Amino acid sequence: MIKEYLKLRGLEVEKTLRDYFEELNYPEVIKDGMKYSVLNGGKRLRPVLLLMTLELLGKDINLGFPTAAAIEMIHSYSLVHDDLPALDNDDYRRGKSTTHKKFGEAEAILIGDSLLTYAFYILANKNEKLSSEKTIKIIEKISYAAGTQGMIGGQMIDIESEGKNIDLPTLQYIHTHKTGMMIRVPIQVGAIIGEATEKEIEYLTEYADLIGLAFQIKDDILDIEGDFETIGKPIGSDQGLNKATYPSIFGLERTKEMLKEKVEKAKEIIEKEFGEKGKYFVALAEYIEAREK
Amino acid sequence: MIKEYLKLRGLEVEKTLRDYFEELNYPEVIKDGMKYSVLNGGKRLRPVLLLMTLELLGKDINLGFPTAAAIEMIHSYSLVHDDLPALDNDDYRRGKSTTHKKFGEAEAILIGDSLLTYAFYILANKNEKLSSEKTIKIIEKISYAAGTQGMIGGQMIDIESEGKNIDLPTLQYIHTHKTGMMIRVPIQVGAIIGEATEKEIEYLTEYADLIGLAFQIKDDILDIEGDFETIGKPIGSDQGLNKATYPSIFGLERTKEMLKEKVEKAKEIIEKEFGEKGKYFVALAEYIEAREK
Repeated sequence: MIKEYLKLRGLEVEKTLRDYFEELNYPEVIKDGMKYSVLNGGKRLRPVLLLMTLELLGKDINLGFPTAAAIEMIHSYSLVHDDLPALDNDDYRRGKSTTHKKFGEAEAILIGDSLLTYAFYILANKNEKLSSEKTIKIIEKISYAAGTQGMIGGQMIDIESEGKNIDLPTLQYIHTHKTGMMIRVPIQVGAIIGEATEKEIEYLTEYADLIGLAFQIKDDILDIEGDFETIGKPIGSDQGLNKATYPSIFGLERTKEMLKEKVEKAKEIIEKEFGEKGKYFVALAEYIEAREK
Repeated sequence: MIKEYLKLRGLEVEKTLRDYFEELNYPEVIKDGMKYSVLNGGKRLRPVLLLMTLELLGKDINLGFPTAAAIEMIHSYSLVHDDLPALDNDDYRRGKSTTHKKFGEAEAILIGDSLLTYAFYILANKNEKLSSEKTIKIIEKISYAAGTQGMIGGQMIDIESEGKNIDLPTLQYIHTHKTGMMIRVPIQVGAIIGEATEKEIEYLTEYADLIGLAFQIKDDILDIEGDFETIGKPIGSDQGLNKATYPSIFGLERTKEMLKEKVEKAKEIIEKEFGEKGKYFVALAEYIEAREK
């Protein structure tokens, strides 16, 4: 069920993204590079979380598409820059050449910059169905989550930690910031658009943090046990960079238990607070645990 | 007179920037890198243009500082990324090591990303003295000017043109986009904040485009005739990259005449339309023509 749901909503988000990219004409290499970097078979987890939040709150999901698309652009730019030779130096992502391999390094830097900048343009230009006050709150939340005190902070500590023995608090900082903040923010801005209560925001944020962590732990497991053909990048690439991971600190067996614990807790919160209405959130948590890519 | 004015307003902008950077704590390397890249003796031309516009319109300049600071952050991020080895590969800027020379290449990419993202956070979070409608219009204008259809578009064509013989329309595209849009936008957003009339916006935009072009032409001249000690980077670095410039197309003498023509026209528009109130705009145009760095 959840796979079909993710696919359906993912396709709707991709349609929105495609429409926005069609508004750009020149330089062609940027337009092509933006499309290549974003429309590449990603899971669309972040934008779909926003739409799911609106559905849970009984609101019109059409209010969420511009913001959902902007969030996916920001997620994609972070991958483009993360893959660069100076950072993770990855040649493949989802079985295709990374953006710098396909377009060149200078081009990839500028394509990433374009995606980030265009995301803010979309937020300001396409949210005419929302009040200006809501739009500004959304821009504030997203720029915070994507910035120094969020995703980029996590990326920087990740880079600075390469080849070092890092402790658990540092690993947790990296995960909660590099991945977690951008999984939490679609739920937060969905709550702003859908006018959720304080209590609802609290439960949804707790859920987001748990699945964000589960997502990262599963990534670490897949980097050891995954299959190149399925995940689309070389196995063991994190180990090759001497990156700290959950398995490197806790061992593989304990890591798998931790994954299960996070997912169970996330499901419990939703079932208790939202009942049947939260079924996609429950299914998504299970999907994150079971996914093979 | 204009030098003192630029210095005074520049210091006020720097105080604002410093305050905003002090709100960031961790990771320290990003905070240090952002400060290093922005608080480096720049001319603050763009933010001061915004403040000058408010003064010309008889409005409180304090309304403009958050937006002025955000524009300077975006300008600075573009220099950090432009200097990277994959792009212009510059080791010096304003007589100091470039950000990637000082902090490392991966770090410089992320420091640039941080500046761009933080600029949008500042626009959304610090403009509480403006109406939400104005703030959204400002974010829209700035993200447009800094993006694919503005500055980044110009950067991309600049890179793609290296080592090629380009024609005048291409050179003009590069100049109007890479430099021009971010010189025009502070005047445009100053006009939004200060509620300028359509006519006023028209004259100010024409002025902005003329001095933007004059600024770029002067840069080309300084790259040939300037002094390393004064401009703070090696002379002839554009020629070394085989970049098209005004002197390479028109020769140095004609280029100097063109500079003079643009500056005269810019002064004329202001004097005619704003009289004595426009004195700083007139003096700034003269300053751009005469500057030695």
